[in-house]
Amino acid sequence: MIDSVHFHVQVVDGPIPESTLRQPAGAGAMLQFRGVVRPQEDGRMIRGLNYQTYDPMAQKQLERLATKAVAQFDLISIHLVHSRGFVGAGFCSMWIALAAVRRKACLAAMDWLIDQIKADVPIWKSAVFADAPQAGQP
Amino acid sequence: MIDSVHFHVQVVDGPIPESTLRQPAGAGAMLQFRGVVRPQEDGRMIRGLNYQTYDPMAQKQLERLATKAVAQFDLISIHLVHSRGFVGAGFCSMWIALAAVRRKACLAAMDWLIDQIKADVPIWKSAVFADAPQAGQP
Repeated sequence: MIDSVHFHVQVVDGPIPESTLRQPAGAGAMLQFRGVVRPQEDGRMIRGLNYQTYDPMAQKQLERLATKAVAQFDLISIHLVHSRGFVGAGFCSMWIALAAVRRKACLAAMDWLIDQIKADVPIWKSAVFADAPQAGQP
Repeated sequence: MIDSVHFHVQVVDGPIPESTLRQPAGAGAMLQFRGVVRPQEDGRMIRGLNYQTYDPMAQKQLERLATKAVAQFDLISIHLVHSRGFVGAGFCSMWIALAAVRRKACLAAMDWLIDQIKADVPIWKSAVFADAPQAGQP
């Protein structure tokens, strides 16, 4: 998508596993964010969150934001992965990894990206409460 | 050092390898920064940087800043590792990993911590230029 920039944007089913990162040449700063489903929502214990995505709009919007971030903050590498479907409490539902020559660019880009994703990308979450009946149970 | 917070501060010899992170209970956000030695300094190619630390002051100052960050940003986990000695271009010389309930705390803490470390901790770097004679060479 963008020449000479390592660019990876994806919507995946379920939780996002840890991955090792290729470090791009010339990077002075690498910043990695993992958003984790918290065990509570509005003070009630939850089993996890269900993420509903409007496909393929979600993927397209994430790509658009990633492209904008690369240009605006002069990134040399970006990974942006978001879950769809069920993600249990304690598991990762969003992973962003950025590399740039300087750290201030990484920090500013990360802050901007997460705000934009929450505001602009058609992904909705709903809590599955711990006291709700499980599928297949009476 | 701080009860119930995972607290790890260390000055290590040479580059800092990648490590897998234990995810603390209740974390909603995990943020990881790796500062990497760039291949150039003032426009000249370098082999790497030599970090000289004033021991044990460097360790104590890092601990003091980490303690302050935990309190100020309500972190639930902190790793803060800095290199001493030679770190080659492309290798990591500072690693910071933070966890908190919310992402804004992680981002603000990371920004604050790196600024403070650069300003306050007695660690000095000097470039080893690529065209400098290597030890043991004529």
